[in-house]
Amino acid sequence: MKIRIYNAKILTLEDKREIFRGEIWIDGEYISYVGSNPTISGQQFDKEIDAEGNLIMPGFKNAHTHSAMTFGRNYSDTLRCEEWLNKVIFPMEAKMTPEHVYVLSKIAFLEYIVNGITACFDMYYESQSMSRLSEEYGFRTVLCGAINNFREKPETIEDAFLRYNNSHKFISYKFGIHAEYTTDLSILKKMSDLVHKYKEPFYTHISETEQEVSDCKRRYGKTPAELFDRIGLFDYGGGAFHGVFLTDEDLNIFKSHNLSIITNPASNLKLASGVAKICQFVEKGINVGIGTDGPASNNGLDMFKEMYLVSTLQKMINKDASVCPPEQVIRFATKGSAIAMGLNNCDTLSIGKCADVIMIDLKKPNMQPINNLENALVYSANPSNVLMTMIAGDIKYYKGKILIDEDIEALYSRAREIVKELA
Amino acid sequence: MKIRIYNAKILTLEDKREIFRGEIWIDGEYISYVGSNPTISGQQFDKEIDAEGNLIMPGFKNAHTHSAMTFGRNYSDTLRCEEWLNKVIFPMEAKMTPEHVYVLSKIAFLEYIVNGITACFDMYYESQSMSRLSEEYGFRTVLCGAINNFREKPETIEDAFLRYNNSHKFISYKFGIHAEYTTDLSILKKMSDLVHKYKEPFYTHISETEQEVSDCKRRYGKTPAELFDRIGLFDYGGGAFHGVFLTDEDLNIFKSHNLSIITNPASNLKLASGVAKICQFVEKGINVGIGTDGPASNNGLDMFKEMYLVSTLQKMINKDASVCPPEQVIRFATKGSAIAMGLNNCDTLSIGKCADVIMIDLKKPNMQPINNLENALVYSANPSNVLMTMIAGDIKYYKGKILIDEDIEALYSRAREIVKELA
Repeated sequence: MKIRIYNAKILTLEDKREIFRGEIWIDGEYISYVGSNPTISGQQFDKEIDAEGNLIMPGFKNAHTHSAMTFGRNYSDTLRCEEWLNKVIFPMEAKMTPEHVYVLSKIAFLEYIVNGITACFDMYYESQSMSRLSEEYGFRTVLCGAINNFREKPETIEDAFLRYNNSHKFISYKFGIHAEYTTDLSILKKMSDLVHKYKEPFYTHISETEQEVSDCKRRYGKTPAELFDRIGLFDYGGGAFHGVFLTDEDLNIFKSHNLSIITNPASNLKLASGVAKICQFVEKGINVGIGTDGPASNNGLDMFKEMYLVSTLQKMINKDASVCPPEQVIRFATKGSAIAMGLNNCDTLSIGKCADVIMIDLKKPNMQPINNLENALVYSANPSNVLMTMIAGDIKYYKGKILIDEDIEALYSRAREIVKELA
Repeated sequence: MKIRIYNAKILTLEDKREIFRGEIWIDGEYISYVGSNPTISGQQFDKEIDAEGNLIMPGFKNAHTHSAMTFGRNYSDTLRCEEWLNKVIFPMEAKMTPEHVYVLSKIAFLEYIVNGITACFDMYYESQSMSRLSEEYGFRTVLCGAINNFREKPETIEDAFLRYNNSHKFISYKFGIHAEYTTDLSILKKMSDLVHKYKEPFYTHISETEQEVSDCKRRYGKTPAELFDRIGLFDYGGGAFHGVFLTDEDLNIFKSHNLSIITNPASNLKLASGVAKICQFVEKGINVGIGTDGPASNNGLDMFKEMYLVSTLQKMINKDASVCPPEQVIRFATKGSAIAMGLNNCDTLSIGKCADVIMIDLKKPNMQPINNLENALVYSANPSNVLMTMIAGDIKYYKGKILIDEDIEALYSRAREIVKELA
């Protein structure tokens, strides 16, 4: 399938910071042209789309989520992180079957697609369900191990690593644990053995709450980052989610191992955890990605909301309206996330890169007048501005219609039943 | 015109907190029935709408905005409040004509309608332009004086008060000044004379920044609220916008005069001002409304974003995830705002009230599964969930289409020209 999208404003997110009027061609799964002066003669396209002056840009990469947690969306919204996990989430998750994970994740995947998200970094269980769904929907998924004391083992993680890194072009798998506070030292050490055996990066929730850090210090005399570093878990890079209470010393560890921090501001607010110090991370030269976290703690999967929060919360905590500008935040949500997820071929609109492309409506009143397009994307846009979502050259969403074969009413009905089964 | 909307979930926001399956009838500008067991026989409707199980609720009331400031949307997003006003906004506003205000406000009004907002409390100049637009679009507008040292006088305010409170059913006018820091004491005293002459409420920006409060204390030995109280400006009630740095003593003044506080969390974040202490206001029994502030400091006019921020920022600053729950925040954005604006007949879905009604799409993936509808409205919904906006029984927006006669491309083009004229 050869597609031409013309009459567009184009934000490539390549190093040179510019937005130009032009077009983009997609040949199969990849971008075959992007620019403003194509040689059209002799070209044959299967489909030509007039962007009508709207914006074409790389799709958002959601660098931290737990898609299957739609069961807990708007289910319990008054507890702090620790209480919420222990009293509500973990007991419900203990009853989950592979079919539950498959069905519940479908709703999240549909939401990603509608919201212009073309890939997710999904830390959860039941990789076979996630892998099946990713393949069926044609949605790019980086699976992340979520090992802890009560679910999965290093052996199952190794098995999943070997299986899902070679199962389908849209699926990859990274080593990960849930968090220090749910994972005994013996398991952490076994995970480190795996990291060294395969020379692979490692991912985990880290320093999400004050209590998590103080408990870890009490147990080990170290912050979670110091502990993981000492055990060698970060010897081949990787990254960590949340990082609200990282210390200066922790940041040095991130820098020295070239780790990414994936920030999740909406979830951190709603669970009353706090605000990550993004400006410090940037100052240190640490790569930053953005994630929505799961739908149970956010409760939407909307990268526009996250971008707005990343930028404006930094202004607030630094008491400085000039920090964390839009051009930086857009890069966190696309390139920064792609780097964190190991999706090095999906980050920009460039010839040969994956055709993970979205179209943003600039003609809704909320974007007008367009005084600065990058600012408009971060401060004014919302999911109603997503006109098209394309993954690997395949259009999944166009002008309000989901182009995936799914009985959506039946899906919602099954999800409602599942919530009752888990309660 | 008699309209029936059936097969709906209904959130009336009457005192009894319930959501039921039912229908609503609109006769002309008013609600003629709302409930679940209507006697249909003998009824004749001009239009019947199947809500398909979606939600019908009162429209959002945007209780603080400056609609015409679309000129400054995404124009300058790196300055703190004082700098931004003095270096960018005030010089541009000095060049504005009535035609500018009329055209620029159109974009904001269209955005309100698309986003489920059925009324706004608009503090700006050129009331004749705002009034004309409000009448043409059929959009409910409460105008608010914005007097200060360099624009408008008490005499023009009195004239506007007399003229625009009787000009059109959709328009009312309240006394107001821009803020203490832009208005000399002599003008404040003249405003107080007007307040007493007409026994009318009074509105103003208040304690938006730390600097505003400390400057006022230096000038008068009082906080802005104490100064206004001493001068008698609040003797007939009213309210104030922002209130980020109100003291306990200020709150006593608000309570004793039955004033409303209108909070604007997105604007306060982006200008690095801070977070208003909403929980304290509620504890004191002070009425709270929500506003977007103008499109130059937000930069969207989206009450879903504001509701999300009101709730989650309170959780963060109080380090308690249980505070400021959704059922409270939805009431701020509808009833609380209506009270602050004097729109006492537009607050709930009840027989005889104004038919200012919106329909919310519950079938987009972001709302599923619906474990709790109020939580979903605050934590998951966004403008893409607005299916219909009706003002005074007239449908202004339905399933993606703006039903107002407007050449939108020409409007955007003129707005772009105006930005150049003001720059």
